[in-house]
Amino acid sequence: MKVEIEKLRFGTELVKRGFAKMQKGGVIMDVTNVEQAIIAEEAGAVAVMALHKVPADIRISGGVARMADPKKIEEIMDAVTIPVMAKCRIGHFAEARVLEAIGVDMIDESEVLTPADNFFHIYKKKFVVPFVCGARNLSEAVRRIWEGAAMIRTKGEAGTGNVVEAVKHMRLINHAISIVQRTNEEKLYSLAEKFASRYLEVSKIVTEETGIRIEEEIVYEHFTIEEIVEGIYEILLDIKKLNRLPVVNFAAGGVATPADAAMMMQLGADGVFVGSGIFKSSNPTKFAKAIVEAVQHYDEPDIIAEVSKELGEPMKGIEKFSETELLQTRGT
Amino acid sequence: MKVEIEKLRFGTELVKRGFAKMQKGGVIMDVTNVEQAIIAEEAGAVAVMALHKVPADIRISGGVARMADPKKIEEIMDAVTIPVMAKCRIGHFAEARVLEAIGVDMIDESEVLTPADNFFHIYKKKFVVPFVCGARNLSEAVRRIWEGAAMIRTKGEAGTGNVVEAVKHMRLINHAISIVQRTNEEKLYSLAEKFASRYLEVSKIVTEETGIRIEEEIVYEHFTIEEIVEGIYEILLDIKKLNRLPVVNFAAGGVATPADAAMMMQLGADGVFVGSGIFKSSNPTKFAKAIVEAVQHYDEPDIIAEVSKELGEPMKGIEKFSETELLQTRGT
Repeated sequence: MKVEIEKLRFGTELVKRGFAKMQKGGVIMDVTNVEQAIIAEEAGAVAVMALHKVPADIRISGGVARMADPKKIEEIMDAVTIPVMAKCRIGHFAEARVLEAIGVDMIDESEVLTPADNFFHIYKKKFVVPFVCGARNLSEAVRRIWEGAAMIRTKGEAGTGNVVEAVKHMRLINHAISIVQRTNEEKLYSLAEKFASRYLEVSKIVTEETGIRIEEEIVYEHFTIEEIVEGIYEILLDIKKLNRLPVVNFAAGGVATPADAAMMMQLGADGVFVGSGIFKSSNPTKFAKAIVEAVQHYDEPDIIAEVSKELGEPMKGIEKFSETELLQTRGT
Repeated sequence: MKVEIEKLRFGTELVKRGFAKMQKGGVIMDVTNVEQAIIAEEAGAVAVMALHKVPADIRISGGVARMADPKKIEEIMDAVTIPVMAKCRIGHFAEARVLEAIGVDMIDESEVLTPADNFFHIYKKKFVVPFVCGARNLSEAVRRIWEGAAMIRTKGEAGTGNVVEAVKHMRLINHAISIVQRTNEEKLYSLAEKFASRYLEVSKIVTEETGIRIEEEIVYEHFTIEEIVEGIYEILLDIKKLNRLPVVNFAAGGVATPADAAMMMQLGADGVFVGSGIFKSSNPTKFAKAIVEAVQHYDEPDIIAEVSKELGEPMKGIEKFSETELLQTRGT
């Protein structure tokens, strides 16, 4: 019986990763209302992300950013036939359950919203709905995959229209994968221990408080640290074998022009999220179509050149952002 | 076969450097539209740089500065018979491919735009179109030449109308060349190692993250650090032999008057870029002609004096700029 339940779980993992793979080669666009969702669908977006505000406006308005009104998300779901995603706060499993209940196609556990838990992300394997999570480096990516993320995306600085951080994350993850690919199993096990140590933070604080350490301590959900290390080690072996992440890896954060999107695809992204870039440009319909074209023909400069002509003003963006404003450092 | 491919590549290098050399002794002017391009051509510019905004306006408007609209660049290409250059963001190889596709004559991988990659510049040897890159010192110049730049220019503070930083970069590079000229091969090899270490930054971050080091690691494009050191060493030997850079070195950034241009030429510049200096002056036509005259007759003070008379107001400029605003520190 236990085996069958296991199978079922892995079955679900497969289905969830399968859904994520279907988005491959596509563009996922942030939208805040039905009109925008229709523009995105007509432009050829593979999915839309239903939001209360685009990241650029979240940055400006400040305050605590939370899950969007479920009614608003449902309106968007009713208006388009492509998949609809929605964001919940990092660690906010109750928001995630709400989004799952209303039937969104994928949940983005996103640093663009204010984190709800500084220790842990949602244990995503307990959900039927697939999740996407951000990652700045291999360590974050592997933890999110172990927790059940079916898709990884870079954590480029959302709302800035500046692609430089997404490039950084893609380069760091790709380089780390090339290292894993050439590392023996013994060293990979040590690496798994290193990557898993992030789950010990609650435990560390309590040990400091009480001075007591116990055997087989449960550190996250129903797992001991040894079980987590084993799980992460398996993922590292997968990465070594595949020479890539075992889930799709999208570019996100700061992508604002067709050339930005093409650049990220050439750096190895499986697809692209465009947040504020479309509806903060002077001509969203044109920008949306141009970015879809650029992702589909990312290695054909003639086409990128053509779709880049007379687009109007791209989103103005923010060139410099201080370390304290960084969204990407949330949830590691 | 391998030899022939090598030859082909070097053939292309030769052609690219040849194009850059043809600009020698000339003035390259920033223009934002057809009218300005025609003024520049009639004044005797050897080339124009097609831009969305001149650097002074980029500084004022803020936000993310990106490649210009390809349509706008094409209009300028159609309006003049002299070569047309255009800028792409540092590291943004997809923007560069767009500019190559529309047929610009040279690409400036420029710190005046917002950098797209904080680790790496474009690997310019993969392109057919020649590139110019900025350099504050010999280290930057040598890295850019190794990557395939056919022309180097100083990274004076663009948009300030203040020549002091261009002078600084020219002095630093010239002094470093005089040192290289009198240094033995063993020490030059150590210098090559030092200059090449900038390519190790992604590798360093990932080593810190993983604690793993591997042999023959690829650090940039398809190169190991040893191969990069070899390439840079060859360039240093060239510099020692020639007692100058193996490509032309132009002055750029803050050149605003005929006397500024003449000064840079006397400091050893092979030619001059004038950015905001012409179209931010009170009489662009007169300024454009005067600066061309000044570059052609840079060691004839009588002529410089003559062309400097009744020019009207030069661009106002910015005398002091804080460290945080410096464009020149981008992309090293």
